[in-house]
Amino acid sequence: MRELHFYFDFISPYAYFAWCQVGNFCQQHGLTLVAKPVVFGKLLDHWGQLGPAEVPPKREWLIRYCLRYADRNNLPLVFPPQHPFKSLTALRLCLPEVCGQLQIETINRLFHLGWAEGRDLADPQVLLDGLCTISPAPEKWLAMTQTPEIKEKLKTETEQAITLGVFGVPTFFFNGELFWGNDQFPFLADSVAGKSFDSIKYQEILGRPRAIDRKVRNPSGDQT
Amino acid sequence: MRELHFYFDFISPYAYFAWCQVGNFCQQHGLTLVAKPVVFGKLLDHWGQLGPAEVPPKREWLIRYCLRYADRNNLPLVFPPQHPFKSLTALRLCLPEVCGQLQIETINRLFHLGWAEGRDLADPQVLLDGLCTISPAPEKWLAMTQTPEIKEKLKTETEQAITLGVFGVPTFFFNGELFWGNDQFPFLADSVAGKSFDSIKYQEILGRPRAIDRKVRNPSGDQT
Repeated sequence: MRELHFYFDFISPYAYFAWCQVGNFCQQHGLTLVAKPVVFGKLLDHWGQLGPAEVPPKREWLIRYCLRYADRNNLPLVFPPQHPFKSLTALRLCLPEVCGQLQIETINRLFHLGWAEGRDLADPQVLLDGLCTISPAPEKWLAMTQTPEIKEKLKTETEQAITLGVFGVPTFFFNGELFWGNDQFPFLADSVAGKSFDSIKYQEILGRPRAIDRKVRNPSGDQT
Repeated sequence: MRELHFYFDFISPYAYFAWCQVGNFCQQHGLTLVAKPVVFGKLLDHWGQLGPAEVPPKREWLIRYCLRYADRNNLPLVFPPQHPFKSLTALRLCLPEVCGQLQIETINRLFHLGWAEGRDLADPQVLLDGLCTISPAPEKWLAMTQTPEIKEKLKTETEQAITLGVFGVPTFFFNGELFWGNDQFPFLADSVAGKSFDSIKYQEILGRPRAIDRKVRNPSGDQT
């Protein structure tokens, strides 16, 4: 069965919206969903980007957009009490090494907890309470998230994602191709149906030169 | 008549895609289109962001996405010979002080030239050739773009946009509200129809605290 890889961090409402749809999408298209928790902040660090919540008017737009998007798409949305929040423990809980066969249910539960119930996913007690209907041993899972092995595992997963070119969340990989953003389902569907872009044209465009660079990238470049 | 303000830079293929749709959108909804040329690089400088073409894997994704998007939406797309390119002269041509009543036609022509015909909008000869069917005096317009007044005007327009919170292109303003991105038409349509978000909830979310900040923003913040 063909796989759809889904990179996410609980910190991102766009990843939440995408998660709400990706299960059905995979079912409709006969794909196996492979969920990949990654640390969004580390992606930003690596690529030198700011997150949407780090640019004041973008944060304001983001909140309005999310309210409008949830409304249009009939998705439950209750913003977490603090944002951005520390999502590391929640992400580690979703590693197969912690939750095993219950990974999809765990991610479901935590996304719902954080963005549909508006609970604080940085609070271990919230995580414990939330997982008690899913996990046979929530305390054990939580303890595992504080071990060096599991901490290292999330780090490695994030580094591997960076190596693959992941720069934001949600990111999908299908058939070796990266798709970024919650608006990519129609394009993923095209790709699943075997409809691709013109790869010769793509490679040719990719190889074309840059005419200008900002000072921040290239001290000799100046657009003025 | 109600106005829709449209902020753009020719450097952005997303702005091109949005421009292809915004005229019809305004006609359908009885809106007057007010076009606002701004310098994307200056928005990035101000907010400390990188543009999509400045993050290597994001640039790769952007090209694939644009090819797929144009195909799905039956929009002509020929990438410019160099990208990013210096769009300042083309933007100045679109100021009402230069093109006057012919502003919409001028923007139409230049977006088509740059992204449907794949010509180099940084090349004055390309601009001259392209405008000869629009402008009664293309040489005069081009000369105006090199005057201190017109240079200053584009700078001022960009600074005013920043003051309003514009952080990217395309950006729309309707009824005092900012909408960012080529995917905003359904949400703009809601807004035009008088359907808004819950503004009390919005203000409340906006006032909630941040729980973490990355080192780049706050030297004392650390997520590890």
